[in-house]
Amino acid sequence: MTSNPPLFNRVAFIGIGLIGSSLARAIRKYHLAEHISISTRRQETLDTAKALNLGDSYTKDPAEAVIDADLIVICTPMGAFEAVAKAIAPALKTGAIITDVGSVKSTAVKDILPHLPAGVHLVPGHPIAGTEHSGPEAGYADLFPGRWCILTPIEDHESDAVEKVKALWLACGAKVEIMTPDHHDRVLAITSHLPHLIAFTIVDTAAQLAEDTQKEVIQFSASGFRDFTRIAASDPVMWRDVFLSNKEAVLDILGRFRDDLDQLTTAIEDGDGALLEETFARTRAIRRSVIDEKQHIPDSKPPKKS
Amino acid sequence: MTSNPPLFNRVAFIGIGLIGSSLARAIRKYHLAEHISISTRRQETLDTAKALNLGDSYTKDPAEAVIDADLIVICTPMGAFEAVAKAIAPALKTGAIITDVGSVKSTAVKDILPHLPAGVHLVPGHPIAGTEHSGPEAGYADLFPGRWCILTPIEDHESDAVEKVKALWLACGAKVEIMTPDHHDRVLAITSHLPHLIAFTIVDTAAQLAEDTQKEVIQFSASGFRDFTRIAASDPVMWRDVFLSNKEAVLDILGRFRDDLDQLTTAIEDGDGALLEETFARTRAIRRSVIDEKQHIPDSKPPKKS
Repeated sequence: MTSNPPLFNRVAFIGIGLIGSSLARAIRKYHLAEHISISTRRQETLDTAKALNLGDSYTKDPAEAVIDADLIVICTPMGAFEAVAKAIAPALKTGAIITDVGSVKSTAVKDILPHLPAGVHLVPGHPIAGTEHSGPEAGYADLFPGRWCILTPIEDHESDAVEKVKALWLACGAKVEIMTPDHHDRVLAITSHLPHLIAFTIVDTAAQLAEDTQKEVIQFSASGFRDFTRIAASDPVMWRDVFLSNKEAVLDILGRFRDDLDQLTTAIEDGDGALLEETFARTRAIRRSVIDEKQHIPDSKPPKKS
Repeated sequence: MTSNPPLFNRVAFIGIGLIGSSLARAIRKYHLAEHISISTRRQETLDTAKALNLGDSYTKDPAEAVIDADLIVICTPMGAFEAVAKAIAPALKTGAIITDVGSVKSTAVKDILPHLPAGVHLVPGHPIAGTEHSGPEAGYADLFPGRWCILTPIEDHESDAVEKVKALWLACGAKVEIMTPDHHDRVLAITSHLPHLIAFTIVDTAAQLAEDTQKEVIQFSASGFRDFTRIAASDPVMWRDVFLSNKEAVLDILGRFRDDLDQLTTAIEDGDGALLEETFARTRAIRRSVIDEKQHIPDSKPPKKS
C-alpha cells in the first residue's frame, strides 16, 4: 500500500534498532512520510543508519530530530523513555503524535506522558514482531505483514491521532488491536515475557555445565534446546528493561508457572504417568488453536545479505 | 546413497509412528533392505501403514514379524519395550540385530536386553529428529539428513552389529555418534527432556487461564509462546514414557533449572538490572555456538500433502 499524499509530512525516530529500522524501511517503501529524521545516542549507530540510508536527516540531538515532526516514534530501550521524553518535550510542535514500540505499555504511559506539553498526543504501540537479531542492520521492511500491532491509547480510542498511528501500521502490513496498557502487559507477560525468562534461564543452566557436557548440549541441541537458544539470543538490554518494567505481571504469571512445574515434578517423582499424559494431551490442543489463528508461521526472513 | 546388495535382507518394524515410518520410507528410498515387515498393536495403525505402502508384509503379531529378520527396529512407545522384547524373543533368529529409536537409552538396555536369547545383538539407537506430529502419516524419508543418531551399544563398539546399524543411519543421511546409555540420558535430559517439560508446563499454565485471556494468548502467541506450543504439541504417550524412564537425570537437571530460575526471579523482585543483563548476554553467546554447529536449522519439512 502506498499513500499519496503520504500519511505524515515528517516522522522522527528516536533510537533505531531492529524494530525502528524495519519501520523506517517500511515507511520508505510505502512512501508514508515525506521526511524521516533519525536520532540515536551513539554516533556509531547513527553512522550505521546513515550508511543504510534509513532516513533523510541524522542528528545525535533528539530535540533537533523532532522539530516540525508530525509523528515521533520512540525506539530506544524502555529504560531511556523518560530521559527521551524530557529531552524532546520542549521541541515538540502542537498536534504532534508520540508513539513507541516498547514491549511494556504501562511504562510508556508512566515514563512519557507526564513530560509532554499540552496539545501533543501519546499513542503507545507494540508491534509483535522481531527476530533474535538486533540493531539497525537487522531490520527489514517486510517484518510486519501478518503480525499484530497493539495500540494502547490513553485518550479517546477513535481520535485522529489513534487513527493515524493505526493507519501507519496497517499500511506496513500489520493487523491492529486496541486495548488498555495494563491489559496488554498482562497478556504479554504470558505470551512473551515468561517464555523469554524461561528460555534465558534454561540456556543459562546449560551455560553453567562443565565444558565437555556443554559441547554435547550444543551438538545435540536439535532435540528441543535449539528453540530455546533462539529465544534466549534476544537483545539483553531490551529484555532487562522488560522485566524491570513489567515486574508485577511477570512475577504473577511466574508464580503460576512454578506451581504447575511443581505439580509435574511431583508426578515424575511419583511415576504418575496418567497425570503426565493427561497434561501433555491438553497442551497439544493449544497448538491447534495457534495454527487456526495463523500465528504459527515464523516471522518472514530478512533478505539475504550479499 | 543406495546399496547393492542391500544392507539387510529382512527388516522388521515393531510399531510404526513418525520415526519408524520415516526410517521405513528411507530404507525403501535407498533400497537398504529386500523386505520390510511391519507389526503394530492396533489394527488401525497397521491399515494406515499398509495404505501408505510402508512395508512388504503386515501383521499384528510381533513374533511373526521378526521371523527371519536380520534387523528388528522397535519403534513403540518405550513403555511397551519390555512386552515387545518378551513377545519377539522366541522368534528371533541367531545373529539378528535389535535396535530401537527411543529417547532414553538406559531403558532400552534395561527393558530389552534381559529377554534376548544368546546370539542376538542389541544396539540401542536414538535418532535426534522429529516434528510435533505423530503417527505413520507424519513420517517422511528425508527426516534424517544432517541430524544426529546416537548409538549406545553395550557390547564392543566396533562389532559387526554396531557397524551395520551405523551404516543404516549413515545411508539415511544421519550423522552417527556413539556413547554409553547413561551418558546419552544425561545429555538428552538437558537438550530435550527439560525443554519439553518446561514447554508442556508453560502451555498448560496458559491452558488454565480464563477463557478470554486464553483467546488473547493464542492471538498474540507470535511473541515467544508460539515456539513453546510447537514443542508442547509432541506425542503425549511418548513423552510420558520419557519422563518415567529418565526420571533421575531429569529431576537432577530440573533442580539446577529451578535454582537458576529462583536467582532470576529474585533479580526481578529486587530490580537488579545488572544481573539480568549479564545473564541475557551470556545466553546470547550460546546461540552463536548452536549456529556454528549448524544445529539451528529446523528439520526439513515433510512433502506437501495433496
